Amino acid sequence: MKSNDLQTLSLTNFNIEDDFWSEYIRLVREVIVPYQWEALNDRVEGAEPSHAIRNFRIAAGEEQGEFYGMVFQDSDVAKWLEAVGYLLETQPDAELEAVADGVIDTIAKAQQKDGYLNTYFTLKEPGKKWTNLAECHELYCAGHMIEAGVAYYRATGKRKLLDVVTRFADYMDTVFGEGPDQLHRYDGHQEIELALVKLYHATGEAKYLNLSKFFLDQRGQQPHFYEQEWEERGRVTHFPSISIIQDHPYSQSHLPVREQQTAEGHAVRVVYMCTGMADVAVETGDADLLEACRKLWHNIVTKRMYITGGIGSMAHGESFTSDYDLPNDSIYAETCASIGLIFFAQRMLQIEPKSEYADVMERALYNTVVSGMSRDGKHFFYVNPLEVYPISNRKNKNFEHVKSERQGWFGCACCPPNIARLLASLGQYIYTLKDNTLFTHLYIGGVSEWDLSGHNVKLEQHSEYTSNGKVKFTITADSPADFTLALRVPDWSDQAAFAVNGIPFVIGPDLIVDGYVRIKRIWQTGDQVEIVFSMPILRMKGNPLIRHTSGKVALQRGPYVYCLEEVDNGPNLYQLILSKESSLKVIYDPLLLGGINVILAGASRLSTDEWDEQLYRHDAEWQTKHTAIRFIPYFAWANRGIGEMTVWIKDS
Amino acid sequence: MKSNDLQTLSLTNFNIEDDFWSEYIRLVREVIVPYQWEALNDRVEGAEPSHAIRNFRIAAGEEQGEFYGMVFQDSDVAKWLEAVGYLLETQPDAELEAVADGVIDTIAKAQQKDGYLNTYFTLKEPGKKWTNLAECHELYCAGHMIEAGVAYYRATGKRKLLDVVTRFADYMDTVFGEGPDQLHRYDGHQEIELALVKLYHATGEAKYLNLSKFFLDQRGQQPHFYEQEWEERGRVTHFPSISIIQDHPYSQSHLPVREQQTAEGHAVRVVYMCTGMADVAVETGDADLLEACRKLWHNIVTKRMYITGGIGSMAHGESFTSDYDLPNDSIYAETCASIGLIFFAQRMLQIEPKSEYADVMERALYNTVVSGMSRDGKHFFYVNPLEVYPISNRKNKNFEHVKSERQGWFGCACCPPNIARLLASLGQYIYTLKDNTLFTHLYIGGVSEWDLSGHNVKLEQHSEYTSNGKVKFTITADSPADFTLALRVPDWSDQAAFAVNGIPFVIGPDLIVDGYVRIKRIWQTGDQVEIVFSMPILRMKGNPLIRHTSGKVALQRGPYVYCLEEVDNGPNLYQLILSKESSLKVIYDPLLLGGINVILAGASRLSTDEWDEQLYRHDAEWQTKHTAIRFIPYFAWANRGIGEMTVWIKDS
Repeated sequence: MKSNDLQTLSLTNFNIEDDFWSEYIRLVREVIVPYQWEALNDRVEGAEPSHAIRNFRIAAGEEQGEFYGMVFQDSDVAKWLEAVGYLLETQPDAELEAVADGVIDTIAKAQQKDGYLNTYFTLKEPGKKWTNLAECHELYCAGHMIEAGVAYYRATGKRKLLDVVTRFADYMDTVFGEGPDQLHRYDGHQEIELALVKLYHATGEAKYLNLSKFFLDQRGQQPHFYEQEWEERGRVTHFPSISIIQDHPYSQSHLPVREQQTAEGHAVRVVYMCTGMADVAVETGDADLLEACRKLWHNIVTKRMYITGGIGSMAHGESFTSDYDLPNDSIYAETCASIGLIFFAQRMLQIEPKSEYADVMERALYNTVVSGMSRDGKHFFYVNPLEVYPISNRKNKNFEHVKSERQGWFGCACCPPNIARLLASLGQYIYTLKDNTLFTHLYIGGVSEWDLSGHNVKLEQHSEYTSNGKVKFTITADSPADFTLALRVPDWSDQAAFAVNGIPFVIGPDLIVDGYVRIKRIWQTGDQVEIVFSMPILRMKGNPLIRHTSGKVALQRGPYVYCLEEVDNGPNLYQLILSKESSLKVIYDPLLLGGINVILAGASRLSTDEWDEQLYRHDAEWQTKHTAIRFIPYFAWANRGIGEMTVWIKDS
Repeated sequence: MKSNDLQTLSLTNFNIEDDFWSEYIRLVREVIVPYQWEALNDRVEGAEPSHAIRNFRIAAGEEQGEFYGMVFQDSDVAKWLEAVGYLLETQPDAELEAVADGVIDTIAKAQQKDGYLNTYFTLKEPGKKWTNLAECHELYCAGHMIEAGVAYYRATGKRKLLDVVTRFADYMDTVFGEGPDQLHRYDGHQEIELALVKLYHATGEAKYLNLSKFFLDQRGQQPHFYEQEWEERGRVTHFPSISIIQDHPYSQSHLPVREQQTAEGHAVRVVYMCTGMADVAVETGDADLLEACRKLWHNIVTKRMYITGGIGSMAHGESFTSDYDLPNDSIYAETCASIGLIFFAQRMLQIEPKSEYADVMERALYNTVVSGMSRDGKHFFYVNPLEVYPISNRKNKNFEHVKSERQGWFGCACCPPNIARLLASLGQYIYTLKDNTLFTHLYIGGVSEWDLSGHNVKLEQHSEYTSNGKVKFTITADSPADFTLALRVPDWSDQAAFAVNGIPFVIGPDLIVDGYVRIKRIWQTGDQVEIVFSMPILRMKGNPLIRHTSGKVALQRGPYVYCLEEVDNGPNLYQLILSKESSLKVIYDPLLLGGINVILAGASRLSTDEWDEQLYRHDAEWQTKHTAIRFIPYFAWANRGIGEMTVWIKDS
């Protein structure tokens, strides 16, 4: 099997039954996708209008009206359809399928004769297509529609949307390319690159892979086309506030992709680009491209990532800034960026299964991504701060982008449908298969089905991973099958005990490779592997080059980073100090947020006694008082009203 | 004498001879004012164009052309002329006076027949005067021109500019007022209020005082006129980025001034307003207005001021934010705002001499104001940060307003001429006289001359205050004079020793009132008062409600707050820890920046050993190494290239 095989395995092979995740996946099906359908149709009271479905109806001639929304509004419909595809692939739903078929009919009608499909340019700027690639997201929207077309085809076998996007891609292939009459250009927002590789997988047509590679190869070439294109269209700028045309790092077009060594600019674009680069690298055997992926990965995870797996330090341009610049309060850490980081990690795991990729994937998934959505599935964070002081945030505009409560639906609504499509396809992130070795990256319970050495093998994972670190695998095989189970040891566990059929499995040095314990044997039905990962409460520290975490500590247990909230610990959380002698204790609180493990700690609090109304004093010593504090998992914050929150706390 | 007498005393009575200040005053005369004249005439290479003089020439019909610059560009010329007035009052300069006379001739010609004077509206929006008081600074510019007219008249006895501004004020008095056909409105940017009181002092005309009071009384009344005015002019907005029309706190028009209890919005406006309120309160005996001054003062200095005397926590709107919200890095702390705070303090000292006003005045003057200008008099800070990390600031747009080097001249050039006029009139801030008591607020060397109990008294102050805390006063009186010398004990001194004619003066509890030691006697020529203020190195702490200084310490010695710079201490200043056991030692460094006292300290530094490329670890303890560090006075930072700087350092 080739490393891309996972892309062609149906989600029906990945049934999820998991204490933590099943509820989220139920939410996607029963709440998020239906709610988002209402939102896309502007039927959610109090939410910002979307108009996304109406734009398609108008372009299809089904309605009268004008385009409304962002230039990339179409992509919300595409991401919703992609999520629907994953849901239908996992479990049939005739009603949902009928709704989706209806939208797809509309989309097909909105497609132009030449194959072009984009309601903004069709309705609002006819005749101007491909004139503002830097800013206007045409290929980005196309990419999302391709992902939707592929997902829907895989789920239902219905070709209508796949044919629409194939025609569109065929048309693109005439417009863009090396030829003298073709555009040697690319989209300001990456997405088409990874989408074309999916289309290649779905159709087997190499030209889509080649077009993806073309876009990557063009990126960052000189002379830069943004300025040229801008001159050609009469110096019209679509987003004047972020200087996309001049600020090449913003869209990672400052250098050819193979020469980029640091993650610059808009964080979502970086990780979408890297995902596409990894896809093309593995298909074409392009070692330089793969090496560029490794370098960008390394820069992100060793210098530019929050402990929650969030990326993007700055609201302006939703961007990376510089190495070790990781402010916790004015942070951006967009939910979509962490989702993109998970895509990137998934591709790297397919190429070279090393636990560092899965460790980061898990960090982003269990912290930033899950934090991005409320437990009711109807409220979302776009920005995921690590420190919030609502009273001062309210008046200090540096924090205008940081919300203290999850919001209903955004004007720029990228995050909610992105969460939906990730959770609906979560089965694709748990395992990879390479050279007859089945790698487990995430310990998410459920049953998966594989073809191993010509045998049909079912792997049942029973996981209590998030609560106590225990996981059990049970094998069912049509006949004894010789293969290797490679089981990731997460970076947060200091002791991992394995047993095969009740007998301790001694992990020799050659049996743990790149963070995976490898168990090779002839597996038979009924074989069991039991694992216990120790789950200490970790006192995490940031690299001393991060000034925002210097002298501070954060708690982590298992995959969860913890935080303090005002509702549990009173105001002025920065006054708390957790010394290394502090007692730390995990307690299961069944009443809190549906039941979660909290951490109780003895701490001290800087006292405000004897200060009255003085602002600065020279005769004061810090006074502290003992206090008991309570940490909750970061993902669960902001579910009990508006209040302070912090992940990092002063160390003694 | 009334409390306002100082306003009518000539600067010739305040000759300054001071180790620290004489050089600055020489710079104002020899460098800043000539340099600014070049800048106002667009003859400084590489600096942003000002066009301010040309605007007047064009409005006067002396040149052809169009208005260029900010809507308040005229005020730069006015502030320059005001500074020139102070210089000429202190010391004649025929050449400078001739230049100023020339400008004044032009200004007079630019005045309209009805008395109106404003080049923006005359040239760019004729017919639209008084249609956008919220945003367009007409009365603000008028106020600065009034201050210039009064200063120039006092210096030279020449009435030309005074007559211009009097005509303008007379015209305003017909436009604005209680009458049914008059505008019940006020300027969005306060300044006219304090200026009209100066005009009242210069002319004795009560109507100017009444008009000042009218503007203060109107401010914040409902229904609010900003929206009404905006509708009337067809919903045109001049500064769309800061929502002046809707955001009433920005311009302190959210409440009647007597009801305001917290400093809200644009910091310069707040303190200019308070200065005018204090002026009117003392002239009219308005107890409510005075109480409002006290409340706003109290809010600023006990909850919203940096240790350097900087005010304004946020770049957006150059504004105050909320109590205890004092970020050191994304700070604004505009130089002009600290200058305005000094104006406010000076007025309060005239009303009620309490050392807390002078302590704050000194803090702002010796730290933020002096930091605002380079030692060559040609480079200026607009923003005065307390923490700078240039590498991350460069790419993080939250810090775009924070410069690591002083700049030549600004597009919005309020700060340089404001520094010039303050330093040129510094003599007015040292003393006040009340009820036969001569208060010394600042220990700045020089000779001042007074009429005390009908006697001519010269007070010679010899000051080594900034270097060793020693001050000596010598009296010269035409005959023995019975009065009280009230000498401020600064808040940073824990022991003050006084001697009169060599005999220790024992300070009984009734002899120190509101922070001033009162020495009452019949003073004769040759009498001397010697003071030694102890000058310990103070380990300053911020109120525990300030999260940005929590667990940190700043050093202060005498009036100077100290800071660390990268050039002395290497990069990553946040890694340094100053324990309370650290040795601290003052050393005079004659080679550094013209000779300054530095503080040497033993400290520890968080080590980056054993971290390599990991971003987060659970198995690390903070390692520290001993290191020697060097603090310099804050005002002297950024004179040795671009590098990190911090005022606050981790406490043990």
